[in-house]
Amino acid sequence: MMRAQDIISKKRDGASLSTEEINAFIQGFTNGDIPDYQASAWLMAVFFRGMDEKETAALTDSLARSGEMLEFAGMDKTVVDKHSTGGVGDKTTLILLPLLAAAGVAVAKMSGRGLGHTGGTIDKLSCIPGFRTDLTRTEFMALVRETGVAIMGQSPQMTPADGKLYSLRDVTATVDSIPLIASSVMSKKIAAGAQSIVLDVKTGSGAFMRNEDDAAELARVMVAIGRTLGRRTHALITSMDQPLGNTVGNHIEVLEALETLRGEGPADLTELCLELGAELLVVSGLKSENSDARELLLQLLTDGSALMAMRRLISAQGGDTAVVDHPEIMGTPKYRTVLHSTATGYLNRLDARIVGRSTVLLGAGREKKGDSIDLLAGIRLYKKLGDSVREGEPLAELFADVEDKLAPAAAQLVTAYGYGRPPEPRSIVLARIT
Amino acid sequence: MMRAQDIISKKRDGASLSTEEINAFIQGFTNGDIPDYQASAWLMAVFFRGMDEKETAALTDSLARSGEMLEFAGMDKTVVDKHSTGGVGDKTTLILLPLLAAAGVAVAKMSGRGLGHTGGTIDKLSCIPGFRTDLTRTEFMALVRETGVAIMGQSPQMTPADGKLYSLRDVTATVDSIPLIASSVMSKKIAAGAQSIVLDVKTGSGAFMRNEDDAAELARVMVAIGRTLGRRTHALITSMDQPLGNTVGNHIEVLEALETLRGEGPADLTELCLELGAELLVVSGLKSENSDARELLLQLLTDGSALMAMRRLISAQGGDTAVVDHPEIMGTPKYRTVLHSTATGYLNRLDARIVGRSTVLLGAGREKKGDSIDLLAGIRLYKKLGDSVREGEPLAELFADVEDKLAPAAAQLVTAYGYGRPPEPRSIVLARIT
Repeated sequence: MMRAQDIISKKRDGASLSTEEINAFIQGFTNGDIPDYQASAWLMAVFFRGMDEKETAALTDSLARSGEMLEFAGMDKTVVDKHSTGGVGDKTTLILLPLLAAAGVAVAKMSGRGLGHTGGTIDKLSCIPGFRTDLTRTEFMALVRETGVAIMGQSPQMTPADGKLYSLRDVTATVDSIPLIASSVMSKKIAAGAQSIVLDVKTGSGAFMRNEDDAAELARVMVAIGRTLGRRTHALITSMDQPLGNTVGNHIEVLEALETLRGEGPADLTELCLELGAELLVVSGLKSENSDARELLLQLLTDGSALMAMRRLISAQGGDTAVVDHPEIMGTPKYRTVLHSTATGYLNRLDARIVGRSTVLLGAGREKKGDSIDLLAGIRLYKKLGDSVREGEPLAELFADVEDKLAPAAAQLVTAYGYGRPPEPRSIVLARIT
Repeated sequence: MMRAQDIISKKRDGASLSTEEINAFIQGFTNGDIPDYQASAWLMAVFFRGMDEKETAALTDSLARSGEMLEFAGMDKTVVDKHSTGGVGDKTTLILLPLLAAAGVAVAKMSGRGLGHTGGTIDKLSCIPGFRTDLTRTEFMALVRETGVAIMGQSPQMTPADGKLYSLRDVTATVDSIPLIASSVMSKKIAAGAQSIVLDVKTGSGAFMRNEDDAAELARVMVAIGRTLGRRTHALITSMDQPLGNTVGNHIEVLEALETLRGEGPADLTELCLELGAELLVVSGLKSENSDARELLLQLLTDGSALMAMRRLISAQGGDTAVVDHPEIMGTPKYRTVLHSTATGYLNRLDARIVGRSTVLLGAGREKKGDSIDLLAGIRLYKKLGDSVREGEPLAELFADVEDKLAPAAAQLVTAYGYGRPPEPRSIVLARIT
């Protein structure tokens, strides 16, 4: 019998833990034999000492196996998953799900709710009347098999050890550890049955990894975990200096996703969807060349196929497909205000984190788990980095259900902007890690 | 309101905590507002980041103030305390208490029970029929004021935060941290009211600090804490490569302490008592020169004064003073066996830790808190480092109440010995830190 304190002291002293030791620790923690106070000391030791590739894969596997595991063996399509480390205005999942289904891969997506300055896909989908994300495991698997695409909220029956460990990390200053972040993300992908995975690791003011080197390191660790555990995994490092697209909120991001699926989306958002989508088609083996994959996806966006797949997805999960042609059925925000430019020049700063914080002030996001949110609250950006603006020109419009929330949010939002010379153009995809 | 996780992350990132932050953390932990899992993450962060002089003093003060504090203001004598970090065969407290009382300083000593391979003074004193160490706080203070000396077991009303923190460190691999060890030791001395303190920091095979540099660092940190908190504190770094004196156990160590108080003790033990005692007389201000202090103490050992003070101490705490002239009233061990030398040469290894472990196997020590012990079990060493031995000559004698325990203990004890060239003579006091 391994004693928990011996496993803690081994990691504390910088040694690598064996797979057996990691399994024993995670199993003991999950079933309550190892108390929280030993787990948190171990987490802090991992924070300082890190974990090597083998340990990180073993931890991921152990977290994945702590609950139900989905398996999509025997399908004629590859089951893919895409994960973003979280950004502001990131509605790519809403677009990629139908787009990839239209391209002929199967997408089985489990998603969390939004927290802090970044929104969650489940919240966004709840704007569509009738759309159900509280699927049972059986419903979810049947949908993937039959329609090639399904999305559901993170199930508490899956990766319970990860849930328990994350709650503990949150209150013990052990969140910011690359092996712990990587194993947490990848354990959920592995448990959800994904055969090929593309990771969108964001960096910049609005991302959890503000520094590009850290983002690349996190991406490398996650790709290595996927490789060790037999899932083809690629990662893109993408820019989150400014919000993605022109909208931030829930209902307002659904509107933009629909425009993008119609081929009329903003350039940065469309570009990121094409890049992530092409990477997924390549990693799943459906296309061997990135350029072929992009060409196919672009065609699906412009010929109506992607939009048609969105109708099928909405219908299959109980939603009202009328939303596609009549998005006004999702409702209209009661109050709005316009933010005007205070200067003339080129926009050379549009801090994504501040935009995200302003959206939370409007009521569109959660400060903590369980907070209720205003689905119609949000921000529409009229200007993005590099655009020229004149003093007094509209920069953005803010929407909320509670009038009092507009002024404080606008006061916050104004601090996101900076003016001057045009910034160096930066492509949305900064690096690719395979 | 400071959040516990912010204090943890501040330490994790290597910053110094303010006195207010340390007080808030320790108070919150003591009253249960800060759960064990946050405390253990903080302890691990301290393990990696350490603490500076100001933080360590603040932690000590906070631990000391978590319960009752004794105060000996207004006495015409200085109240001194001596602390040993724990060794094998260390019966110096039994000798120093009456010796220092005879010299004219007051000694107020709180002591823990033995654990692991090192024995505890409270266990040793329990061999003397009637001797009470479960004094009330009032009895203890009255004895110090009236007779100039008293010893009692560690009171749970004092430094409860230290007790709670130590229990947590024990199971979270955070024991081996110099600032945590130093603040734990010093908090108990401060709470017990000592005005002048001498620390015996042991190093070598039988000590918790096996390495001399670590021992010196621990000593420096404790001396600095004492200085910051207004207690005159000196430390001696002393050798614990072999057991101290010729006996290890409980009853058998009382016998040797009585011999030493009679001026007939073994050289190493007598020397250490004179050095620690002289340091205490100097630090308390009773003597200005170490040589004068030594001379006085040597005289008290040889003229019967120290032994007389021992009679008074025993009597004052309810013990039977007949033990001084008739130590056989403590009983006699039922079983014994002699270990013989397997080689001829000079003894150049006598591993103190192994001797301590062998004594525990005989039943004289505790593996864990609450274990009962055999007071008559023990080991008498006939040869010490540097002695010449012939094959077949007696090395040591083992005593126990249970016959079956002799053979396994002897099998362990034999591994403590090494033979060859005579070792370099090493003085018992290796360094002095003030």
